[in-house]
Amino acid sequence: MKSLILKESGLHIENKPFIPNSATKIMEFSNASINHRDLWIVKGQYAGIKFPVILGSDGAGKCDGEEVILNPSVNWISDPNTQPKNYEIIGLPNDGTFTEVGCFNPVLINPKPGHLSMAEAAALPLAGLTAYRLLFSRCKLTQYDKVLIVGIGGGVALLAAQFALAIGCEVWVISGEDEKIEKAKAMGVKDGVNYKSDNWHKDLLLKSGGFDVIIDSAGGRQFTQLASVANAGARIGIYGGTLGKIPELSPQIIFWKQISILGSTMGNHQEFKEMLSFVNTYKIKPVIDSIYSLEDFKSAFERMDQGKQFGKIVFEII
Amino acid sequence: MKSLILKESGLHIENKPFIPNSATKIMEFSNASINHRDLWIVKGQYAGIKFPVILGSDGAGKCDGEEVILNPSVNWISDPNTQPKNYEIIGLPNDGTFTEVGCFNPVLINPKPGHLSMAEAAALPLAGLTAYRLLFSRCKLTQYDKVLIVGIGGGVALLAAQFALAIGCEVWVISGEDEKIEKAKAMGVKDGVNYKSDNWHKDLLLKSGGFDVIIDSAGGRQFTQLASVANAGARIGIYGGTLGKIPELSPQIIFWKQISILGSTMGNHQEFKEMLSFVNTYKIKPVIDSIYSLEDFKSAFERMDQGKQFGKIVFEII
Repeated sequence: MKSLILKESGLHIENKPFIPNSATKIMEFSNASINHRDLWIVKGQYAGIKFPVILGSDGAGKCDGEEVILNPSVNWISDPNTQPKNYEIIGLPNDGTFTEVGCFNPVLINPKPGHLSMAEAAALPLAGLTAYRLLFSRCKLTQYDKVLIVGIGGGVALLAAQFALAIGCEVWVISGEDEKIEKAKAMGVKDGVNYKSDNWHKDLLLKSGGFDVIIDSAGGRQFTQLASVANAGARIGIYGGTLGKIPELSPQIIFWKQISILGSTMGNHQEFKEMLSFVNTYKIKPVIDSIYSLEDFKSAFERMDQGKQFGKIVFEII
Repeated sequence: MKSLILKESGLHIENKPFIPNSATKIMEFSNASINHRDLWIVKGQYAGIKFPVILGSDGAGKCDGEEVILNPSVNWISDPNTQPKNYEIIGLPNDGTFTEVGCFNPVLINPKPGHLSMAEAAALPLAGLTAYRLLFSRCKLTQYDKVLIVGIGGGVALLAAQFALAIGCEVWVISGEDEKIEKAKAMGVKDGVNYKSDNWHKDLLLKSGGFDVIIDSAGGRQFTQLASVANAGARIGIYGGTLGKIPELSPQIIFWKQISILGSTMGNHQEFKEMLSFVNTYKIKPVIDSIYSLEDFKSAFERMDQGKQFGKIVFEII
């Protein structure tokens, strides 16, 4: 069994005999995909790291002869508010998807959407679940909302844009790269601005007229500028904090505009099934940036670390 | 007609002839009450100040021979998300309740709850509406939530505590004055801590086990400490910002704990009627700190400015 294993000395490809566990189902992976979580774990910037562990939260392959997709969200059944105390994500502390074969709780194994290739299916789970809960369970998105997606190019940001476009929303983006904005416009996004330009938020407000739903993964100083382009009654969903702490957030803007700042991470089993149903209904295909062999893991992780990707970085396993 | 009028030169008591307006109803005020809004307007720290204007958002009295209470929230009918563009609060830009007689849109005039004195009724509208929308429409409070109220002693904070206690919640408070915490405990509040003590938030977390709903009017650095005593899935309702901007808010805490930060101000006509019905059902009486004659307005405003009050500061008008 070939796996990508994280040890104290770093990432290694290893071949070990496969030992099945009778309480679980055996899943053979065709493809897996990388998330920022994997990168942070490799860099030692994640809580509760243990060694050795097979990384990877996203995977698609076969189980009992059926084409399947794995839900990476463990032990969170249906609580609408929050994950339980015994919550886990596939790939740490327990072994993940960067492997030829693995054992998983059968409740996590779901039928693969028929319109997706194995590589596309492997690009969906974590990002799709995160985007779905954030948009629909937390921000209560409707077709009448004008949507702004921050940092288009990442897996969650792209699927959030695709989900919002699918139900008929007008979607705008911001990015640090003009090329990514152009790629997003080719997908149906109305327009965008580059947040490296001066007064980007004033330009954006002028062009767009403001936003009802804003999806952010950055935080940082930029967040206060997002609040300035939020319409009255806006919901700002936040699922990441790559720019760190938010300085100088004005309570007056929050209460006078009746803004809701809604933190969200991953989702429960019910939301995963709803997400799959949504993806099936609207025939949504996750955007794939690039495909690497498991052996070429260094290049794959480097590409994510450089932030150049537009879409998911996928491993070809079998 | 005796009124407390704000002019460029400051507050003055004036007697002018009363000129009714045929499109409105005439209301004779027995009592009015002061809000922080009035203080900020007098200090010139409020947007859109004009002169002259009769201040005051809260009042109770008589209309067509009936005992009535005035809804201070103008033109916001039923939109659950936000106030409309033509939104106004009674007492600026149009004349308010610090007067013997005034003219108001009939839709703002509601029957006074029978169990309240005129002084108690005048203490209810703005604070009751703000607390009701914040707790129930925004934070979706249920009896199973453990509640923390920041800055107990203010009108909204006290009514929020009373509303939460009424439906059976366990309620805690924080305050800068031990005496106010003791007064709150006498009302049924479980316990509290003084935020002037070192590590108050760690003590509070240890004693309480954390909170599902937190009601804040301060913002500032203290807000990040509130996030640290928030349970997973908590809702933090914010209706004021007396301590100014919030520095160093961690996106990671917000998304990992699935926290909702919910800005709220005032409420719509439907929420005002629901609030009155709630107050009638649970026979809630607003706490009155002190009663002043309109002529003694300087003492009344000074008391609010010093922040020593526990409950509403009320004017006796007739």
